[in-house]
Order: sequence, then C-alpha cells, then structure tokens
Amino acid sequence: MITLSIKTSKRTQAINITSQIAHAVRGKEGNVLQAYTPHTTCGLIINEQADPDVISDIMEALDRMVPAVYPYKHVEGNSDAHIKSTLTGCSVSIPLSGGAMKLGTWQGIFFMEFDGPRERKVVLTIT
Amino acid sequence: MITLSIKTSKRTQAINITSQIAHAVRGKEGNVLQAYTPHTTCGLIINEQADPDVISDIMEALDRMVPAVYPYKHVEGNSDAHIKSTLTGCSVSIPLSGGAMKLGTWQGIFFMEFDGPRERKVVLTIT
Amino acid sequence: MITLSIKTSKRTQAINITSQIAHAVRGKEGNVLQAYTPHTTCGLIINEQADPDVISDIMEALDRMVPAVYPYKHVEGNSDAHIKSTLTGCSVSIPLSGGAMKLGTWQGIFFMEFDGPRERKVVLTIT
Repeated sequence: MITLSIKTSKRTQAINITSQIAHAVRGKEGNVLQAYTPHTTCGLIINEQADPDVISDIMEALDRMVPAVYPYKHVEGNSDAHIKSTLTGCSVSIPLSGGAMKLGTWQGIFFMEFDGPRERKVVLTIT
Repeated sequence: MITLSIKTSKRTQAINITSQIAHAVRGKEGNVLQAYTPHTTCGLIINEQADPDVISDIMEALDRMVPAVYPYKHVEGNSDAHIKSTLTGCSVSIPLSGGAMKLGTWQGIFFMEFDGPRERKVVLTIT
Repeated sequence: MITLSIKTSKRTQAINITSQIAHAVRGKEGNVLQAYTPHTTCGLIINEQADPDVISDIMEALDRMVPAVYPYKHVEGNSDAHIKSTLTGCSVSIPLSGGAMKLGTWQGIFFMEFDGPRERKVVLTIT
C-alpha cells in the first residue's frame, strides 16, 4: 500500500495525478492497480488529459447536475460534494503490466476535489 | 466468496452495511475487498456514515436526477431504479490490510435500494 | 490480459458484450475479473439484459442528464460523451469462480458508446 498526498487549493478542482501514480507504481509486480481516496467529498475519475477543456467541462457539468445551494438536510454546507463523490466514486482500477499502467492514449487519472481546499490522500494497492 | 443477505423494507432505502462487511472479512488475507451486488435495481456506494443526513441528501438528489414517473419504455415501472443503479454502480472495492478494511475516518459502505422492499445479496471477494 | 475488439455503428449505442467476455474468460483461474475500456468517450456498465427496453431507458436518461448541445469549452463537439463516460466509469469488476463470472440472474455487461461509430477495445484482467 502506497499513500500519496494531494493538496488542493480551491473548493472544486480537478488535479491530474497520472504522473504521480505512474512514478509510485513503476516496476511493481501485479495485474491491477487500485487508486482509492479515503474521503467522502472528493472523487477519482479517468478521462482525457490532452485537452484541459475536457476536465473543465466535466467539472462544470457536475456543478450543473448537483447544485451547491439547495435546502439540503446536512448542515455543513457541503452536501453537493458528497453527492458528486457518489456520482464519480472514490476509486478507480487500472490494468497493470510490468509495473506500468495500461491507460489508453488519451486517458489520465484525475483527483476531483469537490469541497476544498484540503489536504487529501490517495492510497494505491496492487493485486 | 462470502455472501451477505440484506432485507430492505422500503422502495428506496440506504442501509449502512459497514459493520456487517467488516465482521465478515475480519482476519482474512488479501489486499483488496470487492463488495458486489448481483442485482440491477440497487447499488453500492461509499460515503459519510457519521451524519445520517448525508446519505439522505444523496438518496434525495438521485430521486431528483432520475424521476420515478416518466414515459419510460420498460413496462415494469422501475426504470428509475435501473438508471440509479447505473449511476452508483453495483460494486465497490476497498483496500484491505491484516483483514481490516482501510476505510477513511468518515467512510461507510451503503447498500442503496432503489426498488424495494426486496431480499438482496452482497457478495464479498478478496484478492 | 485479453483484449476484445468492439465495432460500434451509431453515435450512442449500448452493446451487450456478456457472452463475448464469458467466452474469453472461460476456465481461467482467479477471483475477480476486471473489464476496462481504454477510451474516454465510452463506458462499461452492468445492468439488466433480459428486456432491451431497460438499457434503452438508461441510455436515454443519460442523454437527458447530459445534453449533447451546450456551450462546452472543448471544441471537438463530444464533451457530452466525456461527461457520460465519467458517470458510468470505464471499468467494471465481477466476481469470478471456476472461470465463470458470478453475474446475477438478470445482469449483463454493456459497452456504452457515447461518441461513435468507432472501433473500441475492452481489456480483461483477472486477479
């Protein structure tokens, strides 16, 4: 189990953590890499990393689907972040071979902050 | 493979199954636990278990995003449940170490019933 | 690692790939099968395969949640496909036993094309 630390700087923010993960698992044995974030107001997704407009469109679509201001029951003011976390999930799994992730040509791994800024963790486990 | 049985009592209902899963996997060897539900009108998610208002906000947000009444093609009247199941997914994977799930401080595992009441199963597999 | 090829024929299209996957993994050792698609404008889901109206309702619900036409930033005209891919995810994991997937009675595995027609790949990895 390898733990990465991620520091976010805005309330909602997508951070490309592909290189950080690739570096951490380089040369490791195993067939599937799981990246898991042990928090409830952020998420992990895999999507295009070539054009940053893509992840921006994704974040803004989640904002439209899940309004920040709404008569939610939870009084901490971050129910939208918990709901977005439900839609993205808190883990992704990627095939691994020879210690390298078998991501597609355009794929990158993004940490999705929905209630920052915070200090976050991502745990990597290989099976 | 360990199979848990879950009995739901309402049409839509979130049931915290964290303790049940923790008990079932206690002391087992392996690095990742998969919880999988073999049904198509429910889901599994990981989110905050401290304040029950959070999971309530999540369930109600799914209700707003996927209306129960709509001119769906499927005639059984539960298309909304199939769609919600697509949004949550039917499995979650959690890092495991020394037979204990490495959930975050606030994380719990919830069985999301979208078309109950029913008798449901959750299958646990460790790799 | 086994790679399947899938040819889609429409812009949005759900293709049942359950039999193709079952055939590919038949008799293989291991406990969990991961199906992973290395693209960013499609997804993989598990849902009902008995009545084709269900998957049709799911696809149309995604269409309503994520409009194809909107002032997105990404200029390729397929931001909706990237967003839908985020909602479904690009992988599913299924318990495996004796080389057979332990899918539920009604469950099938669907390749969800959101920006076709294209030639796509699905990579199968067993752990």
